[in-house]
Amino acid sequence: MDLLFLGTSSGTPTRARNVSGIALVEGSGKGWYLIDCGEATQHQLLRTPLTLHGLRAICITHVHGDHCYGLPGLLASAGMARRQEPLDIIAPAAIEGWVRTTLQMSQSGLPYELRFHATEQFQQWRNAQVIVTATALSHRVPSWGFAFTEARPDPRLDIARLERDGIPRGPIWGQLARGNDVDLEGRALRSDHYLLPTRPPRRLVIGGDNDRPELLREACHGAQVLVHEATYTQAVAQAGKTEFGHSTAAQVAEFAQSVGLPNLVLTHFSPRYQNQPGRGLSIEDIRAEAAHCFSGTLVLAEDLLRLHLDTQGTLHAPER
Amino acid sequence: MDLLFLGTSSGTPTRARNVSGIALVEGSGKGWYLIDCGEATQHQLLRTPLTLHGLRAICITHVHGDHCYGLPGLLASAGMARRQEPLDIIAPAAIEGWVRTTLQMSQSGLPYELRFHATEQFQQWRNAQVIVTATALSHRVPSWGFAFTEARPDPRLDIARLERDGIPRGPIWGQLARGNDVDLEGRALRSDHYLLPTRPPRRLVIGGDNDRPELLREACHGAQVLVHEATYTQAVAQAGKTEFGHSTAAQVAEFAQSVGLPNLVLTHFSPRYQNQPGRGLSIEDIRAEAAHCFSGTLVLAEDLLRLHLDTQGTLHAPER
Repeated sequence: MDLLFLGTSSGTPTRARNVSGIALVEGSGKGWYLIDCGEATQHQLLRTPLTLHGLRAICITHVHGDHCYGLPGLLASAGMARRQEPLDIIAPAAIEGWVRTTLQMSQSGLPYELRFHATEQFQQWRNAQVIVTATALSHRVPSWGFAFTEARPDPRLDIARLERDGIPRGPIWGQLARGNDVDLEGRALRSDHYLLPTRPPRRLVIGGDNDRPELLREACHGAQVLVHEATYTQAVAQAGKTEFGHSTAAQVAEFAQSVGLPNLVLTHFSPRYQNQPGRGLSIEDIRAEAAHCFSGTLVLAEDLLRLHLDTQGTLHAPER
Repeated sequence: MDLLFLGTSSGTPTRARNVSGIALVEGSGKGWYLIDCGEATQHQLLRTPLTLHGLRAICITHVHGDHCYGLPGLLASAGMARRQEPLDIIAPAAIEGWVRTTLQMSQSGLPYELRFHATEQFQQWRNAQVIVTATALSHRVPSWGFAFTEARPDPRLDIARLERDGIPRGPIWGQLARGNDVDLEGRALRSDHYLLPTRPPRRLVIGGDNDRPELLREACHGAQVLVHEATYTQAVAQAGKTEFGHSTAAQVAEFAQSVGLPNLVLTHFSPRYQNQPGRGLSIEDIRAEAAHCFSGTLVLAEDLLRLHLDTQGTLHAPER
């Protein structure tokens, strides 16, 4: 599974960083999931191999514009690219009304169905690849984090159970092994009942804007990766001229250390942090502050950075 | 006065062209006007010297998403940049409701006032620099073109009138010459009444989506430049697989020729026209078709192209 960062700036875009958007790509490389959709997310996608046909679901963490203003344009472009498959959108309830109003205002009919799932009433969403759950966070507006867990990590057939249930060896076993449900003379056989994982599932937690990382403690159980905002360093946050509702690098790093997370990816940096060291506040200040508190693998996201999480749960960043 | 193209693709962005947006920059270089605001217009602005503080007014030609989806993000970013000056927006009435709904949904309070002017009831907008008028066009939804006319082309004082009206020579003349209205012992003196142009005003006409260029005949009277969509060539339009409501290169060029326009700038090209000749449909096909019908200066817009219209009405394109 891969993480592909489409935007890593908070609030406004800069020349180097777009506003929030993260693609989570299935192990197969075919399907992918979009977490947040700031303005120009569809533009960033043009610089990746991902297509709007491969998009399986969109999760929006909260209603602030830098996390959702790109949604109508992306949905309209998927329509112009003749997408037909329904699209699931897990988002705060207010997003649905706004998206439908926007598409109606601009007279943009879509050739595919939008299936909204209000995060306020959300339990879980799943397909054959992933299980998505949500955790309420703390921000100026309701905000959520999403955990993505591999649904069937390298499954093998549960032979003992197949034999116990009297399922005849043959093509049916093959169907079930490939993840397909089977109708056996009126008996509905669910593939999931006959598959056993051969390793622990990969699990990634992606937080929305949040000033209390510890709210993700339970979600991070069994996770190999946490992606979390680190909008400021402590020094800037304490200077008090910042919007409230965000985490500092130290806060997130201390939390990740406390739950023994092996990999921490920071993102959503205030535009005041520059990429060039020595010119005012530097993104390296954020790295240094987090590294001081966290002993695992620490990554500071950049636009178009692609990270690979292998089946053993090791996170690979490209050589710099 | 300069034209700076922020987006020149129709419908969807490409890697080389963003969706619609054009900046018209005042002769002074300080203030500017935005015509259409497709998604990521604010991102394109980061690649220009223009700031959201210098923006004097926005004109939206019609409600289609590729012409307006960038508006909420741009307005929110102007707020985050602490703009305080009210902003005039001339747009179809539906845009106002949608913008206000969007800002409310995302809980984005602006520190400046939005002053909407519904194009449906629009007569004219003016400040000390330009006069803006609108012309109804023909498209799948109501669409407008906008004419920008220099308000005071290199003015000189009308000495005869000043003397006739008994305005005493002195500082008051200076105030009026600088374009300021003056209160003379209870008598309101309007600068405009005492200024004479020393040359014809520059006038630029910028069309929205439109399949009948001849609707701009009156608007083009006295204009040096027409900017108009040329979404397709005749061959593609006649193949009939295109959306209706757009103009071909030949249609626009024939119209421009018929009214004797000195300069024609084409834009809003279908993404199927590639920049590299020899790879399927080429943008050069559009150029060739228009050049066949139009004998004036022909420019095909590109993203970030900046054209200068000098005080003599000559259009200067950068060397290629």
